Amino acid sequence: MYPGSLNELIESFKYLPGIGEKTAERMAFAILEMDSEKVENFSSSIMDAKNNIHRCPICNSLTDKEKCLICSDDTRGNTLCVVEDPKSVFLFEKLGLFKGKYHVLKGLISPLDGVNPEDIELEKLIDRVKKEEFQELILAFKPSIEGETTSLYIKRILGDMNLSITKIASGIPMGADMEYIDAMTLERALMDRKNVE
Amino acid sequence: MYPGSLNELIESFKYLPGIGEKTAERMAFAILEMDSEKVENFSSSIMDAKNNIHRCPICNSLTDKEKCLICSDDTRGNTLCVVEDPKSVFLFEKLGLFKGKYHVLKGLISPLDGVNPEDIELEKLIDRVKKEEFQELILAFKPSIEGETTSLYIKRILGDMNLSITKIASGIPMGADMEYIDAMTLERALMDRKNVE
Repeated sequence: MYPGSLNELIESFKYLPGIGEKTAERMAFAILEMDSEKVENFSSSIMDAKNNIHRCPICNSLTDKEKCLICSDDTRGNTLCVVEDPKSVFLFEKLGLFKGKYHVLKGLISPLDGVNPEDIELEKLIDRVKKEEFQELILAFKPSIEGETTSLYIKRILGDMNLSITKIASGIPMGADMEYIDAMTLERALMDRKNVE
Repeated sequence: MYPGSLNELIESFKYLPGIGEKTAERMAFAILEMDSEKVENFSSSIMDAKNNIHRCPICNSLTDKEKCLICSDDTRGNTLCVVEDPKSVFLFEKLGLFKGKYHVLKGLISPLDGVNPEDIELEKLIDRVKKEEFQELILAFKPSIEGETTSLYIKRILGDMNLSITKIASGIPMGADMEYIDAMTLERALMDRKNVE
């Protein structure tokens, strides 16, 4: 029904996460109404990002340099924050609270989905921890069975080294209404209760 | 914070309607994770659509041919449906109920926004109606002050020609809950009441 190349553009937009037919159509029409320079920029920014961005050889985060800015920064302390994907690095950096370095796994261990330690490149983390001198390893995975499994596995492998291994707290998010908290979160919050100081 | 070309990609996605920072980030990351062939297709489909799609010289709809498929189709009847944008044409075609031809204005008259009859290329519609032999003109604008103004203007200019000028019904949408209908729609539905047959 649509002219061929409009149809192809709509199909392209549908590759993106969460984009259905209607939204893809709206976006395709928006492209047709944009001025040509913007459209050219859009098109080339897609190829540029795909071609230039690669994994940092040290920490696995995304970079367009030989190694990423954080790995190149000697002032970042000797705490290593281990995360499950590159997005988490940028999330932490946006907050600006953490001043150590990062290591990005390729997901989390999930035996049910057939994801084993070697699939998430744990070897690379272990090699790095043995080579560089970190005082603390902070595991910052999403609270889930997979996150727990991965944390336990790392603890088992690196537990006898001279470094503390911690994980970020899970519990009730700030400002949340108690009645909307799921049972697992509530149970965890209760188990991990702290002294009032 | 993001590597340069990732940042540019995120900015590009923000050109699109309804796309904010978070969604743009999610889309940019999705691009990085797509396989290269898909990304290349995506990038080139944007340029292809922008370069190939243009207005049909007869009806102003979008096409990648010399003139659009509907204008080229001699079996389409002598009813002309006038719409405010190319999207409406595809909307009607999807329904498949209307078997006449279309004419696309460039928006609707809106004196408050400084949009006058010449800005929406009404001249072209008038010339076409005078040249081709239509029996009926169906005005299919969104129910609004601008839609009303444009309808009245067209009626004034073409009213003494030998063709009927109608507009699509506005009123309460099928299946809607009465309590959620706005006052203007309800007023219109009441004014335009019909005999029960």
